[in-house]
Amino acid sequence: MIKQRIELLRSYMKMHGLAACIIPSSDPHQSEYVATHWESREWISGFTGSSGLIIITQHDAGLWTDSRYFIQAEEELKDTGIELHKVIKRSEPSHLYWLRDQLTEGETIAIDGRLFSKAQHQQMFNIVSDKNIKIESKEDFISEIWKDRPALPVSQAFEHDIKYAGLSRADKIEQVREAMITENADYLLVSKLDSIAWTLNLRGSDIRLNPVIISYLVIAKEKTYLFIDRDKLTPDIIKGLKEDKIIIEDYNSIDTFLNKIDSQSSILINKYSTSISHYQKLNCEIIELKNPIIQKLKGIKNDTECDNYRRCLIKDGVALTHAFKWLEEEIQQRSVSEYEYAKKIAHCRSQQDLYHDESFDAIVGYKGNGAIVHYKPSEDESALITNEGPLLVDSGGQYHDGTTDITRTLYFGTPSEDFKEAYTNVLKGMIGLSRARFPKGTTGAQIDVFARQHLWSSGQNYLHGTGHGVGFFLNVHEGPQGFSSGTTVQAQTPIVPGMVTSNEPGYYLEDHFGIRIENLILCVESQYEDYYEFETITYFPIDSKAIISNKMTRAEIDWINDYNQIVYDKLSPHLDAEAQNWLALKCKSI
Amino acid sequence: MIKQRIELLRSYMKMHGLAACIIPSSDPHQSEYVATHWESREWISGFTGSSGLIIITQHDAGLWTDSRYFIQAEEELKDTGIELHKVIKRSEPSHLYWLRDQLTEGETIAIDGRLFSKAQHQQMFNIVSDKNIKIESKEDFISEIWKDRPALPVSQAFEHDIKYAGLSRADKIEQVREAMITENADYLLVSKLDSIAWTLNLRGSDIRLNPVIISYLVIAKEKTYLFIDRDKLTPDIIKGLKEDKIIIEDYNSIDTFLNKIDSQSSILINKYSTSISHYQKLNCEIIELKNPIIQKLKGIKNDTECDNYRRCLIKDGVALTHAFKWLEEEIQQRSVSEYEYAKKIAHCRSQQDLYHDESFDAIVGYKGNGAIVHYKPSEDESALITNEGPLLVDSGGQYHDGTTDITRTLYFGTPSEDFKEAYTNVLKGMIGLSRARFPKGTTGAQIDVFARQHLWSSGQNYLHGTGHGVGFFLNVHEGPQGFSSGTTVQAQTPIVPGMVTSNEPGYYLEDHFGIRIENLILCVESQYEDYYEFETITYFPIDSKAIISNKMTRAEIDWINDYNQIVYDKLSPHLDAEAQNWLALKCKSI
Repeated sequence: MIKQRIELLRSYMKMHGLAACIIPSSDPHQSEYVATHWESREWISGFTGSSGLIIITQHDAGLWTDSRYFIQAEEELKDTGIELHKVIKRSEPSHLYWLRDQLTEGETIAIDGRLFSKAQHQQMFNIVSDKNIKIESKEDFISEIWKDRPALPVSQAFEHDIKYAGLSRADKIEQVREAMITENADYLLVSKLDSIAWTLNLRGSDIRLNPVIISYLVIAKEKTYLFIDRDKLTPDIIKGLKEDKIIIEDYNSIDTFLNKIDSQSSILINKYSTSISHYQKLNCEIIELKNPIIQKLKGIKNDTECDNYRRCLIKDGVALTHAFKWLEEEIQQRSVSEYEYAKKIAHCRSQQDLYHDESFDAIVGYKGNGAIVHYKPSEDESALITNEGPLLVDSGGQYHDGTTDITRTLYFGTPSEDFKEAYTNVLKGMIGLSRARFPKGTTGAQIDVFARQHLWSSGQNYLHGTGHGVGFFLNVHEGPQGFSSGTTVQAQTPIVPGMVTSNEPGYYLEDHFGIRIENLILCVESQYEDYYEFETITYFPIDSKAIISNKMTRAEIDWINDYNQIVYDKLSPHLDAEAQNWLALKCKSI
Repeated sequence: MIKQRIELLRSYMKMHGLAACIIPSSDPHQSEYVATHWESREWISGFTGSSGLIIITQHDAGLWTDSRYFIQAEEELKDTGIELHKVIKRSEPSHLYWLRDQLTEGETIAIDGRLFSKAQHQQMFNIVSDKNIKIESKEDFISEIWKDRPALPVSQAFEHDIKYAGLSRADKIEQVREAMITENADYLLVSKLDSIAWTLNLRGSDIRLNPVIISYLVIAKEKTYLFIDRDKLTPDIIKGLKEDKIIIEDYNSIDTFLNKIDSQSSILINKYSTSISHYQKLNCEIIELKNPIIQKLKGIKNDTECDNYRRCLIKDGVALTHAFKWLEEEIQQRSVSEYEYAKKIAHCRSQQDLYHDESFDAIVGYKGNGAIVHYKPSEDESALITNEGPLLVDSGGQYHDGTTDITRTLYFGTPSEDFKEAYTNVLKGMIGLSRARFPKGTTGAQIDVFARQHLWSSGQNYLHGTGHGVGFFLNVHEGPQGFSSGTTVQAQTPIVPGMVTSNEPGYYLEDHFGIRIENLILCVESQYEDYYEFETITYFPIDSKAIISNKMTRAEIDWINDYNQIVYDKLSPHLDAEAQNWLALKCKSI
């Protein structure tokens, strides 16, 4: 079937004089997760990973994806004729160099210009243009051959109450306009769905697990334009938007709107989220933003959001107390599949106030499965958890008062020495970052090593970042900041008070176990002027069974005892006596 | 006098239709320190700092320099009519923005094209060209008005014996040629003086404290060309060079040579060290190197160099034992000026085998002077050291078997609590970096925080880098690596075995004291594959008087006791009984 689809595309390419097509995994909003309508890369290749890119020429077809998906891709590409190209350095556009070598002068590459950002197009152009290769960026070629393509989603939008959001949409737009004045801009184009949801205090369910609603937003000096399918809006919402002087336009009319902005005006864009298609439609002055205004405002949680977050994470801890207690008891009687347990966790969360959904598919990895960083148990393929061995559980919820993301690693029975050593190193790193204090201006790249140093001492490491920004009832991954060893924009963004970031070092021993311990940490002011520190806002006990205590410093032992005590104090009022007893055991001092 | 010089230049500018002149502090080799012949920035402005740049227009004159020199510059510029522009971010070319604003379309800026690298010229062009401002880069305008300009230095070159260098010049050139083949280049242009000295195993004294000899080197596939004033070479050296097929050409003939390389050939250049003047003379294919070949080879010390370094640093420690013991005894009788003590240190070093010179002007900073990071006591202005208070001593020597750089901070009498706290934090950071283990690929930017974290915890920091590469009987500051919090090329260079870097965190309390503790650390393989660590190769006791021991972890206390024990074991065989006793006291366990 895949082969037929590729042949269909090749016929189309021949007819239109196209030498190559690139099919990415993005949507027109550069979302990390996309609606099924936009899963064209999966449709043409059969590859279901969250990240990867297909290039098709008359004689070749290739998938470029990163190490998380090497094994999965090899299996899924079997018999498709598509070759797997392993991406080692994600910053290097190896597919473009490959493509340049394949093509001859004067040939044309086709892309759907809505799916590539201005920055991606620029990179592509820089690499292929010296060979006089053209990029045709207007073709929606996939719709021509994908006849049963799913429609765009139409979920119902709903208001995000100001008692959770902390700031009205009018105030938020005002803040944005102030920043626009600094940039001397008449318009701001907002393409990112979480930025739109944040600005308007609207949420929806257009993308699984991401409470956003597909739309575009343009903020002008006086007016604001929301481009959206009206069917998504209730009369009340429409009324509220009108009161805030927000003009509702058809989703598809954004193109014409951008095209008609007069040449005397200026528009602010983010080259990483504005599509090349939109960029090429603009006739006015274009100002490329270095720091996206809304991403920055959204990343710094206001006091109401912070207070809500703290309350929300107590509920999340209560839900996990029920879920972990259940598992511990259940596996004394019978084995429980990873898949069943993922469902159980979601169920426990769903019993909590203001619950909306999970924030991502839970990773429940027993023994060797824990070592697969992006493992996701399915109904058909899922290991059975028994009362012996290590278990990694990484899960999170969407609540109206916060988005959560937590990982705990347990060991049923007696942990092995190598597990204990690695567990202790991971924990020491997690504590090191939690306890960090640092001057204003410090970036995630600088303090990332606090989480790695003890693993490094033992010749161990993990190949993922240490942490990502987390939305507030929004995407579980968001910018602008992050902890990682690279030189990415996120890692080079200073960490400032109000930012909520995950702190999740790990260690993975293939076929044996995965260890990851993850809390959310909120950046706050410290007692010293212009120095910041973190408040841990995730409340769930960190298992102490596998800690080698003589490898811990006094300060580290104090930290873990204090932390587990805080957890007990926060969660126990919301538990019955039996659960309290269970929790007290988990929280006892070492 | 300064005013007259500026007026002379302005007349010259008028005559030649130049709207502005830029006078930098560099020489044609982009050296950090320059011969007096190249001190034109000092001549035209009176400003004597090591780093700064002058711009002169018909109506304005300005100096751009960084925070190290704000106070000094203000004093030195008094009554010159030159305005001080404070450079806060060294990466931002604020002077170019200023200049662009001053000039009108079609005007011309003059620079001496030999003193600006290709990269600097490119940056300048990018900023001023949109205003149609021209850059005239051929004018040696300073010589036209600086009538008593000092001649170029003519020091005697001498061989750096292979028993120290470890590798013959023929072998080094062979290594360079191998790298050239990878880059598919016919020629390599070497402008950096330390790179030339390293390649040819030649040293000289053309620049104070930097044992280099002014020259250019071009390595071709078969031949090697050295452009140098022949008077600097002895008959023996000339004979040796000829044996190694190195053709000696006149220093000034490099221009013609580069100009004549045929258009079919290719030349490798480093855009940060090749002058725009040379760049513009080239008619052949130019390949810009990302990682300068020789800098990389030179930065990784070979086994012979490492062994020599260890021996050299024992001598350096012996010299300092004599110097510090002398001071301690002397200040019981009389006060000693910082300047006198700097001389004494140099004298103690000069008594050691294979001594050549100091590697930089010693920083001897008593009390508040220690807080001035680049303080240099002079004969006329120098505080008197008594037997009470803190003293920072940063000094180094040039030996045939190594270049040294060491800082120790002492406290005569009873240290204050704030001194003890900061001293302990600095020391903990120094130990943290010394004990670091890290995976292959780790950069100086990543591990820089190991040296800062304890200061940060107390709301303290230092605004300089944590460490720089150190040459082998060459410049005390060299690339390619460095420990710092920035995103500079040095900080982003992976640390690999063989690199020698300084480890020198500090803390400075204005008007009170400066604390810096500095050792040289050699990167070596660890017990884990693809993980590296450091061997400390500086041997001199670290004063324990100001350590707050209950703020140290067991591991940190063990480190300091082990270190001081190693120091005693290495140095004591070279000392008489009295000095041994003195050292034993300094090295005793805490």
